[in-house]
Amino acid sequence: MSQVESRLAELGLCLPSPPPPAGSYVPVVISGSLAFTSGQLPVQEGVLQVKGKIGRDVSLEQGAELARICVLNALAALRQVLGDLDRVRQVVKLTGFVASAPGFTEQPKVVNGASDLLIRVFGERGRHARSAVGVAELPLCAPVEIELTVEIVPER
Amino acid sequence: MSQVESRLAELGLCLPSPPPPAGSYVPVVISGSLAFTSGQLPVQEGVLQVKGKIGRDVSLEQGAELARICVLNALAALRQVLGDLDRVRQVVKLTGFVASAPGFTEQPKVVNGASDLLIRVFGERGRHARSAVGVAELPLCAPVEIELTVEIVPER
Amino acid sequence: MSQVESRLAELGLCLPSPPPPAGSYVPVVISGSLAFTSGQLPVQEGVLQVKGKIGRDVSLEQGAELARICVLNALAALRQVLGDLDRVRQVVKLTGFVASAPGFTEQPKVVNGASDLLIRVFGERGRHARSAVGVAELPLCAPVEIELTVEIVPER
Repeated sequence: MSQVESRLAELGLCLPSPPPPAGSYVPVVISGSLAFTSGQLPVQEGVLQVKGKIGRDVSLEQGAELARICVLNALAALRQVLGDLDRVRQVVKLTGFVASAPGFTEQPKVVNGASDLLIRVFGERGRHARSAVGVAELPLCAPVEIELTVEIVPER
Repeated sequence: MSQVESRLAELGLCLPSPPPPAGSYVPVVISGSLAFTSGQLPVQEGVLQVKGKIGRDVSLEQGAELARICVLNALAALRQVLGDLDRVRQVVKLTGFVASAPGFTEQPKVVNGASDLLIRVFGERGRHARSAVGVAELPLCAPVEIELTVEIVPER
Repeated sequence: MSQVESRLAELGLCLPSPPPPAGSYVPVVISGSLAFTSGQLPVQEGVLQVKGKIGRDVSLEQGAELARICVLNALAALRQVLGDLDRVRQVVKLTGFVASAPGFTEQPKVVNGASDLLIRVFGERGRHARSAVGVAELPLCAPVEIELTVEIVPER
């Protein structure tokens, strides 16, 4: 088993099946040493876990948990394409889009759910640059959407 | 004629003049094997085609058509810088910002207008990673804004 | 003194201490020849300079000035990681997120505050691709958030 998946197992986590794209795109594209994931929603087994806006329908704590689910989906998509998550050399960039009720400005705490998980799983290699913003609406009425850019080790 | 432009012609499409930037920036920057386009609006001959928010002022179908216009503008900008769109080796990433009325959550269907066109024009090389989000407002009151990252073949 | 810092001094500007991240991330990650900054807010000495939405609480002119502060923070973060801003070979991409009151659509003029400063400081090397969008809410109630991708010269 790969080191990253061992680490996920230690944390009591397992990767889901990668969710199918919500439109005419693919979950991951590799270009040179970078892999770009599509924006991931907090979908589990084809079902969006919670709908609504954070700060009104969804609490900050729930939002952070949903951001973790987004990251697990992104990792599942990366594993499918890379074969092995040990090929992730560095998480480079994370963008977190938070569907925000008027006046909700704690996007960083929501997106920490995603960032903290990456650091727990990848250690130093999980420390990334990040932007977190509050958007008006997200696909399917999702409360959060996360995309990743990671640097990868070339195929062995 | 380049293969990509032949394909555009087959589809009954021709590239517009690249729209001038709406501010202090350039339409495309190349770095290594990646070309980054600026966000493109659905402008034709200097005129924004439709104003407003999707889900209130603009229908989903109109939005998807406007997303196609954004992509044609992005391709026009790329052609100007690359000389030839056959130098696009892979469309890597598309981000679609959809000006969304409250409760409008079909951003993926709007942005499919952009994605489907890229796949029709470039085939497998057009299959990209994507994020689609619903934003509060866009420049000039545009209903949609699309940016692309593409991998290019080095200059011949 | 580096050429870029001389130029900043000529403009009467000096770089702040890089603001600490607002969450579980780092200010800059380098991957190959690209450096990605985290989204920067208009924070000075730990204090967000102005709160609110542009077009209601904050004027366009103030917004442009706040966008300049975001860029200075991004440059401070880059200097800390790169050692010397003369290692910036090209500003590649800027994304500007503008917290926008309903109906405010002049995001490009706000983000020009950031873009114009980069061009004044870096000259041709400062000319970048850009997207500017109007978002619902930003962290800490910030009126603007700016992220940069720059191409760097490898370490000497």
